[in-house]
Amino acid sequence: LSLTKLMVGSEGTLGVVTEATLRLLPPQPPRSTVVAVFPTSGGATDAVIAITNVMRPAMLEYMDAVAINAVEDWIRMGLDRTAAAMLIAQSDAEDTAVERELEVMRAACEACGAAEIFSTTDREEGELFVGARRAAIPAMERRGRLLLEDVGVPLPHLPALVEGVSRIGQEYGVEIAMIAHAGDGNTHPLLVYEPSDPTKSAATLAAFGEIMDLAIALDGTITGEHGVGRLKRPWLRDQVGDEVLEITRRVKLAFDPHGILNPGVIL
Amino acid sequence: LSLTKLMVGSEGTLGVVTEATLRLLPPQPPRSTVVAVFPTSGGATDAVIAITNVMRPAMLEYMDAVAINAVEDWIRMGLDRTAAAMLIAQSDAEDTAVERELEVMRAACEACGAAEIFSTTDREEGELFVGARRAAIPAMERRGRLLLEDVGVPLPHLPALVEGVSRIGQEYGVEIAMIAHAGDGNTHPLLVYEPSDPTKSAATLAAFGEIMDLAIALDGTITGEHGVGRLKRPWLRDQVGDEVLEITRRVKLAFDPHGILNPGVIL
Repeated sequence: LSLTKLMVGSEGTLGVVTEATLRLLPPQPPRSTVVAVFPTSGGATDAVIAITNVMRPAMLEYMDAVAINAVEDWIRMGLDRTAAAMLIAQSDAEDTAVERELEVMRAACEACGAAEIFSTTDREEGELFVGARRAAIPAMERRGRLLLEDVGVPLPHLPALVEGVSRIGQEYGVEIAMIAHAGDGNTHPLLVYEPSDPTKSAATLAAFGEIMDLAIALDGTITGEHGVGRLKRPWLRDQVGDEVLEITRRVKLAFDPHGILNPGVIL
Repeated sequence: LSLTKLMVGSEGTLGVVTEATLRLLPPQPPRSTVVAVFPTSGGATDAVIAITNVMRPAMLEYMDAVAINAVEDWIRMGLDRTAAAMLIAQSDAEDTAVERELEVMRAACEACGAAEIFSTTDREEGELFVGARRAAIPAMERRGRLLLEDVGVPLPHLPALVEGVSRIGQEYGVEIAMIAHAGDGNTHPLLVYEPSDPTKSAATLAAFGEIMDLAIALDGTITGEHGVGRLKRPWLRDQVGDEVLEITRRVKLAFDPHGILNPGVIL
């Protein structure tokens, strides 16, 4: 039985890792970058699907207007504040193949209505835009406490998830920035949280729950990469169902009969 | 808890798969091929390590002299019967990048003493050699009943495994063809078995066990991709140890308390 992934995803509930052997891979080739801004978020998510239908980009990241403006407020790098969404895509193809991959990505963005498309084979120039994406979380942290979501869906449902999260934000009056590892269908809505205001806190938690409900309704997951922990525990049953939850409980018992390993997490 | 890999590797001992959802990937680009023959098996396995140290080939397959000659006896495609080993390596890089990857592979083979190196960007020409590798098992089946091993080791130990299997074959007087998904460190020694001769059958089973002992001694696995089943069950403890075996037993109980799922397999 392959226990590795079971242990890796167990959030400390099945054991303690005391030793790990890694297989190293050769270094990756340098990357080239396409950046595109869109007048609508749907155009950007359509472009994600158009790109991933024909190739596997080395990186394909999404930022919405809230995230773009938060980054621009913080580090002023000249991002387009009027854009609804921005994609940062990278290719690790080599030599002349890179130009063809960049062209595939540019063409997909253009066909999906991008307002502006920029591409570069210069590594450092590309890193500036990757840096903008990386700055999104610290930039949003300057606007308040963050509740960081981690919901993923099969790629065809990405547009519905992104649109739905925005609608949920409006309904509950919660500021949400949407950033995503879009090429994987894995999104991180960042909900701005106000711990001192009980009404707004409740609205934020309600929106947080609605987003998980939406991901589950779209055949997705409440935890793309971060885990269930304590906060998302109440939604796990809706995602996996009673039977899987019961098996999960029995697997936990098999590893940890006395319940001493990270109690209260996941189950 | 991530149960997918646990279920996939369970050989039917934890459940029955009734439905599977797959994520499709874009089609792979056409592949180019390097074929190299070596006067020693150690030269070929050194080349495997030299190649994988600097790149990730799309395919990297190994055939020894026994396999080459069995294929040649069967389908006569002009393989070099005097070679100790042959590598079939492929690149799925595109455009001019492919030429660079082929050159990396050719240079590694040359540095490791290849007697002859051939490369082609023609897909069908490359497929002929891949076909020769694929023909190895049916070709060997014409020489007798086969006991098909499936032992893998970390790549740095591949030369020791290949050399050791050959030594074990000589010691026990068993004909063994070595074929391998060499780039993964995963080998398939094919032991020619004679069910009607009890002495030779016993020698073959003994050699089969020695090969597993060797893989374990080289920090490897008794089952690279095929499974433990019933035949390899006695060696599982040596590979994973008492504690992991006990946890495996408890996980089995969690899924199958009545022991009705593929009984006798793995545990």
